Amino acid sequence: MTTSNAHDAEPIPGSGPDTGRAQHEEDPAASGAAVDPEVRAELTRLRDSIDNIDAAVVHMLAERFKCTQRVGHLKAAHRLPPADPARESQQITRLRALAEDAKLDPAFAEKLLNFIIAEVIRHHERIADTAQPQQDGR
Amino acid sequence: MTTSNAHDAEPIPGSGPDTGRAQHEEDPAASGAAVDPEVRAELTRLRDSIDNIDAAVVHMLAERFKCTQRVGHLKAAHRLPPADPARESQQITRLRALAEDAKLDPAFAEKLLNFIIAEVIRHHERIADTAQPQQDGR
Repeated sequence: MTTSNAHDAEPIPGSGPDTGRAQHEEDPAASGAAVDPEVRAELTRLRDSIDNIDAAVVHMLAERFKCTQRVGHLKAAHRLPPADPARESQQITRLRALAEDAKLDPAFAEKLLNFIIAEVIRHHERIADTAQPQQDGR
Repeated sequence: MTTSNAHDAEPIPGSGPDTGRAQHEEDPAASGAAVDPEVRAELTRLRDSIDNIDAAVVHMLAERFKCTQRVGHLKAAHRLPPADPARESQQITRLRALAEDAKLDPAFAEKLLNFIIAEVIRHHERIADTAQPQQDGR
């Protein structure tokens, strides 16, 4: 019960963009018990905000990867050496402080940055592999 | 070399917010080879954008967790059942489409959503645990 409730809160049930907002009858949340319309309205409001935020985050990250791709190409072209690990730790320190100010769990912010960095590394491995022939004299 | 270059691109070397932008001498990228000032300027520009985007993402996610925390409390208070897994998969489908439009790897967007959902679940387990005594009659 505890886990179910916990799992529930992320994908708010009922009105997905493709199912339409009015199909409350098909909402699994409504099958267990009658849901107060005010509660449902509040859930829908929150879900809409979550969807908007997710779209914003996706677009911000697309922009971020555009930046890191360009960094990767620049570095491959100029054979720049790896970053100072101290710089990376400064970046983490900064993000943790920002998270704390925003009342976001700093540990989560750090994990998220590491998650994104892992993806950047994958991208840059591909870039470096592509750039290799050029460095060999092409 | 490949991996080092790859790793480098995320934490752009040199001018962290606390080291100051002018301390190029201390930049590990500069210790290996002389770096073209134009290349360095471009790296700094990209790094600044990455830092700005990270700050934006942290704040968006702080807002997202405010939403999901409220969802968690609402659901705990009204004993709402878990979400339709179909809704979750719709959410993933939507995010993947958004990612594709934004030229972000859809698989990455899906992994990211799952990463965030895992954190939401942890939050909501805490909420549900706290709400339990109330459900028992408090």
